[in-house]
Order: sequence, then C-alpha cells, then structure tokens
Amino acid sequence: MIVVMKPGSPQEQVEHVIQLVREMGLKDHVIVGQERTVVAVVGDDRFKDRSVLESAPGVDKVVPILAPYKMASREVQKERTVVPLGGRIKAKVGGTTVAVIAGPCSVENKSQVLEIAHAVKEAGAVGLRGGAFKPRTNPYSFQGLAEKGLELLALAREETGLAVVTEVMSIDQVGLVNRYADVLQVGARNMQNFNLLNAVGEQAKPVLLKRGMSATLEEFLLAAEYIMSKGNTQVMLCERGIRTYEDYVRNTLALAAVPELHRVSHLPVVIDPSQGTGKSYLVDSMCRAAVAAGADALIVEVHNDPEHALTDGAQSITPKQFSEMMNSIRRIAAAVDRNV
Amino acid sequence: MIVVMKPGSPQEQVEHVIQLVREMGLKDHVIVGQERTVVAVVGDDRFKDRSVLESAPGVDKVVPILAPYKMASREVQKERTVVPLGGRIKAKVGGTTVAVIAGPCSVENKSQVLEIAHAVKEAGAVGLRGGAFKPRTNPYSFQGLAEKGLELLALAREETGLAVVTEVMSIDQVGLVNRYADVLQVGARNMQNFNLLNAVGEQAKPVLLKRGMSATLEEFLLAAEYIMSKGNTQVMLCERGIRTYEDYVRNTLALAAVPELHRVSHLPVVIDPSQGTGKSYLVDSMCRAAVAAGADALIVEVHNDPEHALTDGAQSITPKQFSEMMNSIRRIAAAVDRNV
Amino acid sequence: MIVVMKPGSPQEQVEHVIQLVREMGLKDHVIVGQERTVVAVVGDDRFKDRSVLESAPGVDKVVPILAPYKMASREVQKERTVVPLGGRIKAKVGGTTVAVIAGPCSVENKSQVLEIAHAVKEAGAVGLRGGAFKPRTNPYSFQGLAEKGLELLALAREETGLAVVTEVMSIDQVGLVNRYADVLQVGARNMQNFNLLNAVGEQAKPVLLKRGMSATLEEFLLAAEYIMSKGNTQVMLCERGIRTYEDYVRNTLALAAVPELHRVSHLPVVIDPSQGTGKSYLVDSMCRAAVAAGADALIVEVHNDPEHALTDGAQSITPKQFSEMMNSIRRIAAAVDRNV
Amino acid sequence: MIVVMKPGSPQEQVEHVIQLVREMGLKDHVIVGQERTVVAVVGDDRFKDRSVLESAPGVDKVVPILAPYKMASREVQKERTVVPLGGRIKAKVGGTTVAVIAGPCSVENKSQVLEIAHAVKEAGAVGLRGGAFKPRTNPYSFQGLAEKGLELLALAREETGLAVVTEVMSIDQVGLVNRYADVLQVGARNMQNFNLLNAVGEQAKPVLLKRGMSATLEEFLLAAEYIMSKGNTQVMLCERGIRTYEDYVRNTLALAAVPELHRVSHLPVVIDPSQGTGKSYLVDSMCRAAVAAGADALIVEVHNDPEHALTDGAQSITPKQFSEMMNSIRRIAAAVDRNV
Repeated sequence: MIVVMKPGSPQEQVEHVIQLVREMGLKDHVIVGQERTVVAVVGDDRFKDRSVLESAPGVDKVVPILAPYKMASREVQKERTVVPLGGRIKAKVGGTTVAVIAGPCSVENKSQVLEIAHAVKEAGAVGLRGGAFKPRTNPYSFQGLAEKGLELLALAREETGLAVVTEVMSIDQVGLVNRYADVLQVGARNMQNFNLLNAVGEQAKPVLLKRGMSATLEEFLLAAEYIMSKGNTQVMLCERGIRTYEDYVRNTLALAAVPELHRVSHLPVVIDPSQGTGKSYLVDSMCRAAVAAGADALIVEVHNDPEHALTDGAQSITPKQFSEMMNSIRRIAAAVDRNV
Repeated sequence: MIVVMKPGSPQEQVEHVIQLVREMGLKDHVIVGQERTVVAVVGDDRFKDRSVLESAPGVDKVVPILAPYKMASREVQKERTVVPLGGRIKAKVGGTTVAVIAGPCSVENKSQVLEIAHAVKEAGAVGLRGGAFKPRTNPYSFQGLAEKGLELLALAREETGLAVVTEVMSIDQVGLVNRYADVLQVGARNMQNFNLLNAVGEQAKPVLLKRGMSATLEEFLLAAEYIMSKGNTQVMLCERGIRTYEDYVRNTLALAAVPELHRVSHLPVVIDPSQGTGKSYLVDSMCRAAVAAGADALIVEVHNDPEHALTDGAQSITPKQFSEMMNSIRRIAAAVDRNV
Repeated sequence: MIVVMKPGSPQEQVEHVIQLVREMGLKDHVIVGQERTVVAVVGDDRFKDRSVLESAPGVDKVVPILAPYKMASREVQKERTVVPLGGRIKAKVGGTTVAVIAGPCSVENKSQVLEIAHAVKEAGAVGLRGGAFKPRTNPYSFQGLAEKGLELLALAREETGLAVVTEVMSIDQVGLVNRYADVLQVGARNMQNFNLLNAVGEQAKPVLLKRGMSATLEEFLLAAEYIMSKGNTQVMLCERGIRTYEDYVRNTLALAAVPELHRVSHLPVVIDPSQGTGKSYLVDSMCRAAVAAGADALIVEVHNDPEHALTDGAQSITPKQFSEMMNSIRRIAAAVDRNV
Repeated sequence: MIVVMKPGSPQEQVEHVIQLVREMGLKDHVIVGQERTVVAVVGDDRFKDRSVLESAPGVDKVVPILAPYKMASREVQKERTVVPLGGRIKAKVGGTTVAVIAGPCSVENKSQVLEIAHAVKEAGAVGLRGGAFKPRTNPYSFQGLAEKGLELLALAREETGLAVVTEVMSIDQVGLVNRYADVLQVGARNMQNFNLLNAVGEQAKPVLLKRGMSATLEEFLLAAEYIMSKGNTQVMLCERGIRTYEDYVRNTLALAAVPELHRVSHLPVVIDPSQGTGKSYLVDSMCRAAVAAGADALIVEVHNDPEHALTDGAQSITPKQFSEMMNSIRRIAAAVDRNV
C-alpha cells in the first residue's frame, strides 16, 4: 500500500507512520515529492487493516496496491477453473460449452416443476434452477415449499438428468439442501452472510455465488475467497444486476463484469438476465449479449404460466420463449467459437 | 394497485386483466382514458404479487399504491414507539432525550473495552457498542473474540451500567448473544438475512436494525416488519449510510431518511455517523446534523487508540473527541427542544 | 396521472384535488378504496406539472401514467427511424447493417488523424469520430484544436469518404461545426444543455446524442424530444455508460438500454464501449455484446499511439485491435441476421 | 502519481514506463515489492494525462496522489473565502452569519415575486432566488419569463434590498443576466458546461455553482477551478442533492459534503434542501441539519401558492413555513456559535 502524507506534514509524523508500518512487520520506502511525502509499504499487506494508518496524524490517505483476495485471483492460478455441475448430463461450467441452467423462480408443485424441467431439458438446458427456500422482501409473501420443494427438484432430476441448482438461505438449511442439490446457490442478499459462506465452503458440492446487489467486484471475489478458504474451490461467480438509479429495470446488468472477472480471477462467470433486468421482454437480448461478452453459463427463469407464478412472474419467460432464446444463443456461441 | 394497459390494447386484454384481478379476490375499476385504459384495483393487495399482472398481455406496468408493510407503518400505529435500552441506566430511544450509544468497533481485550466504556459513560453515553462477532469483508481479517468478547461487554456493563448493544451475525449465535446483550444488533449486510430477522423476532430483547447498504426505505421497513411479525415490536431503525458513487466517504449518509422514516413509521431512528461516513474527521459534524434532523439516537465508534484498533480505526474517534462531540450535540439538542 | 390521497383524508381534500384537476382542463375519476381514495386523472396531462398536485393537502403522491415525450415515442411512430450518416460512403444507422464509427478521442495533428482514418476505413468503419472541441473536466487539460481540428477531419473525409462525427459543445460553435461535420455530436455533459439542444435541433444535420452520465431513459428521450421539437428528427441515441458505485470501470455500460430504447422509441441506438468502460481491454467484448443486444451502431475510440494520446489513452484501442474487433463483430452480426 | 505494474511484468516494461514518465518531464522512483513493482512519479503531475500510462504494456493501474485542482484548494489558500452577495443588505457568505437566500423556483409575475420577496425579507432572508431562464427536462414545460423575469427580480431588489441570485443557462445569456443579477447561478445540469463556466469566470459578479447531480467533489471543485482560472474567485459551492437509487426523495442530500468541502477547499458551501430532497415536508429538517453541519448559506424555494406554482410546487414551502424554519435555524446557528 501507499501512505500519502498531507502537504507540509512534519518529519515526526512521517517517522510515526514508518514506525507503525514496521510494527505491522512490513518494510517502508519513503519518497519525498515536491508537494507531498509518500510512504510506500513493501511486503504482503493484503491482510493488514490499512485503516489503522489512516488514523495516524499527518496521513491524508492510504492507497491499497495488492488485491485483498488470493485463492480467487488469477495471479495465483493461471488456468481457468472448470466446475462440473453434476446430474446425469455431467455438464461443466467454464469450458468451451456455455451451460444453461433454467427453471422456475420457486418450486410450486409437482406438475409445474416437471413440466418446466422437461421443457428446458428438451431445449438444451443442462441444469434446473428452482427455489425451495425463497428469500422474500416481504414477510407475508410465499416463502417456498422447503423440503417438499427439494424433493420435487430431485424427482425432476431423476426424470430429466438435469443438475439441480437451488438456493440455501441459512446455515441450518445447508445439510438438508446439500442432500438434494447438485449445486448450492448463495443468493445476492446473502453474499456477505459470512457464516453461510463458511458453511457452504465446508461442503463438497459446487457453489453458485450471486453478486450482492451493490457489491464491488472486490467484495464479490472476497466472498468467493471465504468459500474457497474453507476448502471448497468449486465456485461459480454469478452477476445478477446491480442497484443503480435506473428505473426501467429492476437491476442494471453490468456485463463488463464478465471480461473483468475473467481478467482478475480464474473462476467461471455466470449471468442471470432474469434477475439482472426483472423484465421478461429484456431476457432474450441480454442472454445473447452475455454469451457474446464471454459468459460461461446462463441461469434463466422459465415458467409455464407466468401470470400465475407465485413469485417473479414479470421476469419469467415461457418454455416457448426459452426454446427460441436457446436457438438464438447457439448462433452467438458459434460466433465466439463456443457452443451451447 | 393500478394496472396501466399499453396504448391500443384490445378489450379482451383488459378483460383478461379484470379476470386475474378477481382471481386474486380483489375488485376492479376500469377507467378508459384518451390514450390508455387503466384498471384500478380496489382491496388489500398489499401481500399480492403484482408482478403476476405485469406478465399479462397488453399490460404496460403495474403501479403499487399501498405500502407493503403494516406493523411498522404509522398508518396503523400513530403513537411513536419508545424502546427501552436496558442496562442500569434505563435509557430509552424515541422520547425527548437523544440516546448516545458508543464504543469500539470490535471488543479487543479487557482493558480496551473497560477504558472506553468508562470514558463514554462519563461523557454521557447510555449504551455501549462493541462487536464480539464481526462481519468482515475479508476472510483473513480479525473476526472478533466471540463469547469472550460478550463476557467483556457484560463486565463493562456491570462496571458502568451502560446497556450493551452488540451484533448477532447468524441464527446459531442468537441464543448466546441474547444471554449477554441488552440490544441485539442486526448489521447492514444481514438486513435481508430473513432467517436471522425471524430469529431475533422471537427474542424478548430490543433490536437495532441497520439499513442495508443499498436498501430502499421500503425494504428497510419490510425487514423491520419481519422482526415485528414474529412478535418483537421493539425495533430501532438505524441509517448507516448508503452506497453511491461518492468516493470521499465510505458511504453517503442519507439524513433525509430521519424525517421520512418518522413520517411513514412509528419506530425510532438511530444514526450511525461512523459507518455513515467512514472518516473520523466527519463524525462530529454528522452527529450534530443528525440531532438537528431529529434523530432519536446516535451510535458512534470510539477507540482509545485508533492507530492500533483491530478494525475500523479510520472511522473511530477518541474518547476526548467523543466528549467534545457530546458537548456540541447537547447544544443542538436543546435547540430542537430535546436533550442528550 | 393518478393522485393517491393519504389514508383518512377528508372529503373536502378530495374535492379540492378534483377542483385543481379541473382547473388544469382535465377530467377526474374518483375511486374510493378500502384504505385510500385515489383520483384518476383522464386527459393529456403529459405537459402538466404534476408536482402542483403533490402540494395539495391530503395528497400522498402523484403517479404519472403517460410518458412525457411524444415525437421520440414509438407510440406515435411505429416504423423505425433510419439516419443517413453522410460522407461518400452513405452509410445509415438503424437498418440491417450495423454502422461502426471510429477514430481518435481528440484530433491531434494531420498525420495522426489521417493514419487513423485510413486504418479504420480499411477495417470497415463508415464514420470517423474525433474531437476538435473537447469537454475536459480539468481546465488545464488539452481542450482540442478547434477549427484546425475540424479542417483535419474534413481532409480525412475527403481522403477516405468516411462521415465525420464530431462534438459541438456550445451554441456559439454550432455554425462552425455544422460547416465541417456530417453528424453533430452532443456530449453526455451537455445532454441537458437545453439551449444547445435547441440549437442543434435547428440544423439540417443528424445528431448523435449521448446519454448523460446519470440520466434516466425518460430524461434521455426528453433531450431527444428537445431536438426533434425544433424540427430535426434525425437523432441517434448513444448509450455511453452510466455512473454507479462500480470502480473497475469508468462507467457502467447499461446494455439493457438497447432493447428498452427500441421498445419505447423508434430512434436508432448507438453504443460507445470506449467511454462506456474506460478500459481498452474491455472494449472488444463490449462491442460484441452490444451488437448481440441489438445495437444499430458502435462508436469506438481508436488511436495509433495510445501511450502518447493527448486524451483518453486508457480507453483507446489500436488500429490492429480495431481490425480484429471488426472481424469478431461481423460474426456476431451474422448471428443476429445483420451485417457490419 | 503511482504506477502499479502487473505481477511478473518484465524489467523492459518497467523501463518503458520510466521512459514515458521522463518524457512527461517528471521524475521516477522505482520500488520493487515482493509481488509487484511500483513506479512512484515525483513532480507536479496534476495536469498530466495519467491515462496515457495506463496504456503502457505491463501497467495494472495508475493511482493519482495530487488533487487536480489548485486555486480552489485549501492547500493553496488557507484562509476561507468570504463572498459578498450584493444588494443593499450587503450580506456575505462564508463568515459567522449563515446567509439565507429564498424565493420562488420561477419568476411568474409581478405580484408573485414581490409578495414572496417581501415575505422572505421580513423573515430574515438576505438574498432572493428566482429563475427567469429555467432549465426544464421537458421541452413543452414553462421555460421562464426571460428578461421580463429579470426585470421583476430587479424590481424586487429595489423594494426589499435583497441580493438577486438567478440562473444563467447559456453563454448568450451571460451579458443580460449579469446586468440584472447580483449573483450568477450555474445550475446542476450545467456544472460541466465548460464554455459557460469560462464565460461566468470572466464576469465581476459572484457565482453560485451547483454540484452536478452525479458529480464527484473533485469534478465539482474542478468546475469551480474553471471559473477561478478565468479570474473570478468569488465562487460559492452549492450541494443540491445527488442522484442515487433512493426513491422517497428526488435527490439524496449528501450533507457530509459540507465538512469535506471545508476540509479540502477554502470556498464557502451553500445547501439547497429544496432541490436536495424534492419534498417540501423534508425542507425544514434538512435546513436545520445543514446549519448544524456547518453550511455557510441556504438557498430555499418559497412560493406563496405552491399548488399553482408553474414549476416545482412539490418542493416549495410557504412564506409561513419559511418564517418558522428561520426561527428554528436561528436556534441551531446559535448552538454552533453562528447566527442567521
């Protein structure tokens, strides 16, 4: 990190900073500029609390240099991580093939989940999404079928071979969800639920980690680092739109996150255009754009009767629209030397 | 809610919407405008999923009219909620007196917490804050002393009479934290950790609920509603800064939230100027502004040695600065017919 | 619009609202709900100031229904506008072919602009961008070559046949820029410089209007409406990234704006991935994503020596990178039944 | 600035950076860390384009150290600037007295402006605001009375002695507005209309510069620097709320900007709680908070008949509310050793 002193800070303040740096087990390197003195700190300060130095007298600001994550960083691992999804289809996320995970927002009943599962399977999906535990903003809204929902997802997997991707909301659900799911999903609202991150980090199943709705990429990668540091390195990073002032969408889908995450991390990147826009009529074009931008997978909400969906009807596409979307992204994937 | 049809939507689409509205057990009221038809929906649609109607053909948008929360709403309860903090001091949040809660970001050791507790008590604080469980962005950072930290907080309460306000991060900590704390704090990162909200909603201790870093006030009040709907109505709403593009602060402290929350809710409002700015040199003026804006309480980070604080040194003020701040807000409080 | 009364608002307040509505020449339609009374306002209230009604006693909020723009709206004009760019190439923006406009951020000297113009022409560009007047955040930065820059652009057009797209910053430059340019560009910082919008609205040249860095799409379309209402309907809407909390990019490129603008407006949509990310290494993938999302044109910064560019070196790609990018978007364009 | 190389960047890339630095007339200082090499650049790089270095091979990022503005900086001028407002009252902004400027959003007619002017004068205002040229988002909205409006403002000044503060939207209005106004206001939408900044910088009248709705403080101070660099150092910085995701206000009033601007600049700071919230019922508490935070002046919208105001009725308070607000801020001002 670089400690920037205020203009005119006396030598004793600079020396005090040097002393604090040495207390941290780091080396200092003082540069006296025309207007300011700067103390460059040499050594692995990745896990030091730089805010401490900001409190020292005469310090103007402290600029970090090293990324604070390690296992998630491409500096540490050059080769891309490929995550096997599970299920009979044995698809992978992170290779040449763009994996598509699709299904209803919530598992509602047997015929709903089976009908959707068969439809998306037929159109080319390799994973089935569906919530059994639903994080709802409103306490009075439908909260999901819980274990009954998990059983229905497992049944759909048996029938279709699709890998089951479903959310775990709380540490006390981890064991249960782990028994049924192929992939544990951590939702955007829980991206910094650190106890949950630790708990899924101790499982042997891959994790689909959603970016928090106002998380920086650094915070996102640090959340992945929580999971990885517990031993589970099968993490997929899912961009699902961020909160901005924009009002024609529920979230602003930040597709530049795809190449940037690929640049700084070796983990595969998944795009959720359903949450990422909140509007079913924007899903198709954002799926195309995501694949063109280099996404390794898509996760898409599909409902056979959006008007009667218990949750998120406005952002769900129908099986027919899904099938058309799959055809359109097959062409895009070919144009970037991948396939679906 | 109001369902706005697209221009030129045929009568059959309007009738389909009417049918969906009636299926929801609500009444419809059709208004044919010059350019658009609008279906006003009459009845308590507070807990209906309006996104369903957005999926119907011919619908342009659906505009909610009723606030989706009830117990937290001032429409339901006119008189202001006053929350007793506990501790020997028996202070309250929500009355004429502005309560000040102060203490270190993290509990680090016995002498630290006792020294700070005595200092803030002497300067006029009525509550002691301090983290035993710390939600840290980085998995390699100091994560708190856990139960040992809670014991030290309890010891400080014994010595000073201050009420102990401390964070509970996870459902498995609720029982433990409840045994030691006077007030259960739910952090910003957990504002939509709904399982945790439910769990603290079942306790008999007051809850200090922090606003999520990009939560709307509606989402904030719905998080309070989660807690209240489980039976715990002793909720304090804490504004702690929101995430914006601003870069001279860690968060943008949205002080207009104080009068707005007072307008729409009966719950007391607490301001956290330490998290709310991230800069110790901005804390004093933001404390003054918060009291002038009508805040019912402040929660402030104080450290006896910010340069060696294990967490958040940059936003902690010293006991001496705290004492000066208390003097300055006493004058402000008097100017708005309150006291500290 | 819909006027929502506060709960329990007395009849006289409702009647006062009705009276105000009638004073505005509009019709009222009162709906008495279980908890609230709502006054639906019928008639063309597009150009009425709804904030007036918000001031009336007993009014909780006023919800607009009609979009406030007309000429830019797809409701008024179904067929898509196709804008001819000018130059000898006679390309168009808004048809099947995706037009690419490329060139340096600033015009710096003759050899620079000619070398770049020839290179981008050869790679398939149809327009040449380049600033002669530069809006610079810092008053001490290079401000552009002014008329000398315009002359160089005209020379490059003569040599290559490319249409010249260049920014006009101020009403006193409109005549001058109009003499040299094929397309008048209005920059993001001037999107709500209404006098400038009026002035370019009176010209016979097409306008490339950049979205303000925190403009809503409604504000963006109203800026287009300013230009169109003066008689110039040849407006291209350019998304160039919005300001959010994200810090790995200079701006967050909101690609969902492409299908949304196509949904609500008939005007063609241009994407600027250079400004839209601020990082040359993100430009290529964002160009692909933009074409996949349905963009009608791209505007890209290209510099033959980015390290010595006078402005925006960090977001400029080289002619070689541009040529590769063109090849990659040709394949994407084909995959969405377009060409480049 | 500090140039951070990528990990493992070879020596020749470092040397290339050193060469570029020297080409810029600056000195380099290379620090070889454990994981990265860093090139500290010594010398006044304030006006150099650092993005150039970002383009060099092997460079990861470039971190600026010096603030890019000079005349507006407190480093250059320690003593606070005090700006005389003009008018017969001869009030000043920046001293012990908090100046209050009040009046209608738009000048509508003679009786309106005179009635409001007398009322705010009586309540203690020292300046009269009122728009003759109105920047309106919608081209079909009322655009102001132009010179007729300026005449009415001048008449009100004659009658009351209040200083006239009014907006100039465009370079061709500067001469005209300058003849009538005591203070030239540059609106938020024009904060980066650099030609306008230059034009007002050449006048002898003080300038009230509004912060752009998504401007950083650095951009805000650079806009002030534009004006000051042309010779006009009488600049007041006006925070008027920023655009965020918050939806209960029109803008989020960032009051921490007050102490921060005072920390980095010597210019006085004005708060606009009317634009800053967009809701008349939030104005009173935000005025109190602003004064408590240290604001040097307030600018407040007051209308004698908000329900019939031609613009911004929803955020205007009545003369009676204004008078009560003045009483409440007098008490706050006394509590911070100032007066109103």
